[in-house]
Amino acid sequence: MKSFSVGLIGAGRIGKIHIENLLHKIPNVKLKSVVDLEINDNLRTWATDMGVSKLTNDPNEIFKDPEIETVLICSPTDTHAKFIQEAAKVNKNVFCEKPIDTDIKRIKETLSIVKETGIKLMVGFNRRFDRNFLRCYESVASGQIGEPQIIKITSRDPAPPPIDYIKVSGGIFLDMTIHDWDMARFQAGSEVEEIYATGSVLIDPEIGKAGDIDTAVAVLKFKNGAIGIIDNTRQAVYGYDQRVEVFGSKGCVIADNEATNTVRIYTAECTNIDKIPYFFMERYMESYSTELKSFFECLRKNIEPKPNGEDGLQNVLVALAAQKSYEENRPVKISEIEKY
Amino acid sequence: MKSFSVGLIGAGRIGKIHIENLLHKIPNVKLKSVVDLEINDNLRTWATDMGVSKLTNDPNEIFKDPEIETVLICSPTDTHAKFIQEAAKVNKNVFCEKPIDTDIKRIKETLSIVKETGIKLMVGFNRRFDRNFLRCYESVASGQIGEPQIIKITSRDPAPPPIDYIKVSGGIFLDMTIHDWDMARFQAGSEVEEIYATGSVLIDPEIGKAGDIDTAVAVLKFKNGAIGIIDNTRQAVYGYDQRVEVFGSKGCVIADNEATNTVRIYTAECTNIDKIPYFFMERYMESYSTELKSFFECLRKNIEPKPNGEDGLQNVLVALAAQKSYEENRPVKISEIEKY
Amino acid sequence: MKSFSVGLIGAGRIGKIHIENLLHKIPNVKLKSVVDLEINDNLRTWATDMGVSKLTNDPNEIFKDPEIETVLICSPTDTHAKFIQEAAKVNKNVFCEKPIDTDIKRIKETLSIVKETGIKLMVGFNRRFDRNFLRCYESVASGQIGEPQIIKITSRDPAPPPIDYIKVSGGIFLDMTIHDWDMARFQAGSEVEEIYATGSVLIDPEIGKAGDIDTAVAVLKFKNGAIGIIDNTRQAVYGYDQRVEVFGSKGCVIADNEATNTVRIYTAECTNIDKIPYFFMERYMESYSTELKSFFECLRKNIEPKPNGEDGLQNVLVALAAQKSYEENRPVKISEIEKY
Amino acid sequence: MKSFSVGLIGAGRIGKIHIENLLHKIPNVKLKSVVDLEINDNLRTWATDMGVSKLTNDPNEIFKDPEIETVLICSPTDTHAKFIQEAAKVNKNVFCEKPIDTDIKRIKETLSIVKETGIKLMVGFNRRFDRNFLRCYESVASGQIGEPQIIKITSRDPAPPPIDYIKVSGGIFLDMTIHDWDMARFQAGSEVEEIYATGSVLIDPEIGKAGDIDTAVAVLKFKNGAIGIIDNTRQAVYGYDQRVEVFGSKGCVIADNEATNTVRIYTAECTNIDKIPYFFMERYMESYSTELKSFFECLRKNIEPKPNGEDGLQNVLVALAAQKSYEENRPVKISEIEKY
Repeated sequence: MKSFSVGLIGAGRIGKIHIENLLHKIPNVKLKSVVDLEINDNLRTWATDMGVSKLTNDPNEIFKDPEIETVLICSPTDTHAKFIQEAAKVNKNVFCEKPIDTDIKRIKETLSIVKETGIKLMVGFNRRFDRNFLRCYESVASGQIGEPQIIKITSRDPAPPPIDYIKVSGGIFLDMTIHDWDMARFQAGSEVEEIYATGSVLIDPEIGKAGDIDTAVAVLKFKNGAIGIIDNTRQAVYGYDQRVEVFGSKGCVIADNEATNTVRIYTAECTNIDKIPYFFMERYMESYSTELKSFFECLRKNIEPKPNGEDGLQNVLVALAAQKSYEENRPVKISEIEKY
Repeated sequence: MKSFSVGLIGAGRIGKIHIENLLHKIPNVKLKSVVDLEINDNLRTWATDMGVSKLTNDPNEIFKDPEIETVLICSPTDTHAKFIQEAAKVNKNVFCEKPIDTDIKRIKETLSIVKETGIKLMVGFNRRFDRNFLRCYESVASGQIGEPQIIKITSRDPAPPPIDYIKVSGGIFLDMTIHDWDMARFQAGSEVEEIYATGSVLIDPEIGKAGDIDTAVAVLKFKNGAIGIIDNTRQAVYGYDQRVEVFGSKGCVIADNEATNTVRIYTAECTNIDKIPYFFMERYMESYSTELKSFFECLRKNIEPKPNGEDGLQNVLVALAAQKSYEENRPVKISEIEKY
Repeated sequence: MKSFSVGLIGAGRIGKIHIENLLHKIPNVKLKSVVDLEINDNLRTWATDMGVSKLTNDPNEIFKDPEIETVLICSPTDTHAKFIQEAAKVNKNVFCEKPIDTDIKRIKETLSIVKETGIKLMVGFNRRFDRNFLRCYESVASGQIGEPQIIKITSRDPAPPPIDYIKVSGGIFLDMTIHDWDMARFQAGSEVEEIYATGSVLIDPEIGKAGDIDTAVAVLKFKNGAIGIIDNTRQAVYGYDQRVEVFGSKGCVIADNEATNTVRIYTAECTNIDKIPYFFMERYMESYSTELKSFFECLRKNIEPKPNGEDGLQNVLVALAAQKSYEENRPVKISEIEKY
Repeated sequence: MKSFSVGLIGAGRIGKIHIENLLHKIPNVKLKSVVDLEINDNLRTWATDMGVSKLTNDPNEIFKDPEIETVLICSPTDTHAKFIQEAAKVNKNVFCEKPIDTDIKRIKETLSIVKETGIKLMVGFNRRFDRNFLRCYESVASGQIGEPQIIKITSRDPAPPPIDYIKVSGGIFLDMTIHDWDMARFQAGSEVEEIYATGSVLIDPEIGKAGDIDTAVAVLKFKNGAIGIIDNTRQAVYGYDQRVEVFGSKGCVIADNEATNTVRIYTAECTNIDKIPYFFMERYMESYSTELKSFFECLRKNIEPKPNGEDGLQNVLVALAAQKSYEENRPVKISEIEKY
């Protein structure tokens, strides 16, 4: 099996997850260098304990190292496009965390460089690799439920992020629903044509003051005729509610929440089940390693990884259309956004 | 316990269900007369076997009988308003099948006569009495899940009705979704302010030729801030898919489909469960008797039955707004419709 | 469809259930006479309200009425054998509540008269007609799970009966487990060869003082090689726990408890489901009408009803063997009992 | 946090699982030496890839290394007692795979040396650390379901091992049920007093020829009055069926099988769920790392690990009593075995 020498940029929360997976769960991959622009003692200790062989603040240790043929970009969003472009120019394949960027022009420019150089680019919409949603997709893709007609996604966070985060997040449609746009497109097997989005501030008035909403609903019309429905909230007090349903001409497939355990407790009052997993670390941890395995598998087979740059672009287009729809209280076509 | 002498008009499919319940399941009620304008041998035999004491084609046998104080109206929709008005004028309480009418003016006129005469009027939105949706409502109404924020209704028929029926049905929003408007309002505990509805012809092109759609999605904004989501289809090949979910500030309550039985079969290939109940006769039969019990209970206690005439009106207002929204592809406020 | 004229003896709790079913749920059956030896005002009022046409304390009103061809026996256990014999002698078919008797000799004598006269006899082990256990049986009988190898029955009452009842009940194995012996034999499709039974007094010491146990476990060896496991308790505080599992060479089928409703409530503490149905009135009501329908269907088709007299006999044999096994703390063969 | 230097003996299937966990999942543990008596190229390559620093065939590299204070014994069963004793004599704490031995005298002798030297000994009954069974235990131990009265364990393998393995396995009660004896004792919180065990050859006659059975049922009486029921089979074609149920005076707790995913597929024929996990690698993998974490946690806190040597002894006592019960077809008291 072909081995890969890998460099990773950005050892924050998600970067650390990828580092751990690269070191312990992905066979035949060697993590040669980790770059972080703000190395402190905590990070240094963590990296040593983990067995990271090189930690540096210079991205060129990756870009200029001829041995490294694959780059994982986990740095802040506003550096993604730049690093993808740099990697492409030195002909290294890229796995980049979502989103590529929030600016359509900049995304298109980046994708065009990717195309020219012929490198492979995967964008980190990890939920596609959740065992439940993947199983759902397999059922749909195999034709078992016929033509998809209605796609329903429930996606609710357990608690809102800090207001300071909300302020720079780009809004709920770009920050939180971005995963759901991808999931809806993934399951539908088609691109979005028109969107109607609405929402309210029902959780915390501070979120409203920060210019955002905390509860959102969107209706998507796909090119293949299917209709998508997404509901989001920043606060589901009972846990991280993540469900997908695809209804089709020959049946329906439902991927429910994961259970924390299989125990039911029957008492004189009622029957109890433990709460669902609290957040993405509990729910999606496995999906991150499955995602990376898929990425390296594609590199090995020399096939296009999915989700790719085009997925990254489409998801942002839908997000921006949703924002416009919410602001103007009317359905918005993706083509209205696409031209920018 | 006070007894009631009852007359029933319209011994069609739903009328027969009520007759059977009145005879066998509702205590202290005497079904004195059944009126049907088109009595044939089949009906006559059925009535005799069932133990109906009087079957006639003259409504005056009910309206002019001083002993009968309660009328059940199960005749075709276009006769509902007329019969309610007639019953009101002779001071008889009324249970009327949904809808009161499809014309707003005529509904309002009827409700104003109901109000003047002081009779009690219940409208037959039986799903409120389904044990699952009622339990859901109790949880919401008790405050257990806090303020309702998102109401989701899945409501899918197993197979489309004949095209001839579709043509005179008034359209999917008035014919099929009418139950879901009521359910959404019931669970939300609030009235609809604005609606966005969309849909497609995905099941049968003949439905499109008849001027209707067969797949519909609606987003409701309630006056209390809650957002409702409804999805309908005329054909779910796996059975009658009827689910309700209410998400609130303190939790979430989900009423799932009824199971046909509790059996799971594990084999070397997969685990099997039997299909969900086929249609409303299998799913909602119990709700019809619970509904009538509630009606007579309200009469006994001299309290307003629910759902009442106002519910009947609101559900039609929402249906017409949905139709307008679909046609004009924009969110429509109920107030736009209400003024008619 | 052939009609039946029916007489019923014994209008106690279970007799009333059958009367109501005969009047309202079983087509083409006429309940001509109800006999009860102790008619009081309550019963008289109940019978009138229900529409019973004749209520008498003389069994001959049934046995000497040539029009009545079918007798339902719901009187106390010690009268069952006598009434079956009387009915057989005047050539009337019999549905008899379980058990036929608790004395093996008397059962055999009764069955021999049944055989001679050629009447049809069904014994009221209604649980066979529970939609879940019936579905389980269908799966097993169809061969879907291959040869049955392990049959597991969980059968737990919600609360113990009064001590006075316990004293005359014949013991837990004859009174409570009798239904489970029948269910195990039904699902296994084979007769019991040997049994090991044990138990304790864990619920109420008064039950022990009355010479009985309140918690029991039995292991059955069937002639076809299958092994059965039954556990009973007189008190499951969370409701009437009634489950069946059949494991076979090609799979496993599990019939779980019925749910009171399909609602799940998710809160910050846990997920709640309502309690399971409280007792047999909630759980098995439907099975009683299904049972009677099956009985009349067999009469119509002139085929042997099941469960029949032989089932009644076998279940008592197993119960007595269980009692002996418990008392002597050793496995007991049915053949040790059968010879009496 | 205190660090541990560890040596491991026996790099077979289960040893490799522990090695991987020690290297990647257990913090503050250093795996210094791995001993295997039969080192081949495969093992050498595996160890290098995995990052094992020293691989040797000499146990003294562990026992004579003063830096190593903890030994993991994963070698064949007949070497367990010897290695525990050796480790004890040089004062090293021990985690030993189950069973300690199959000979009561030898186990007692080993435990007495453990006691004298004061080392800590954990025995690898990993299922106690399965998240579901652990949650079940927590519910029982907290008193939530009151006094445990009935403990039911379903434990079925997906396919029988090779006949050659069966021949040297010590029989189903020592080889397979050993885990269930431990689970029953764990959940009951009490020791077994008497056992009745039975079984048959229903899967493969070759197993019978090898002197063993493939289907087994046991009824346990615990000192606290609770009754245990275990059923085993060597072949459940639908997967690795692992369930635990504890019924008590205040309720009942049920730990069901893990699901492979949460997807339900509804079609016109039926509803499908994927098969349950295939075998222990799929079901119990997480429990192995939880087990080791618990072991090192106990060492850190200087408290007795559980399950310990006494558990190891009791489980073998029950297994031998079960074997005797099966052979003599009578209930057997543990005290009959204990004296040996």
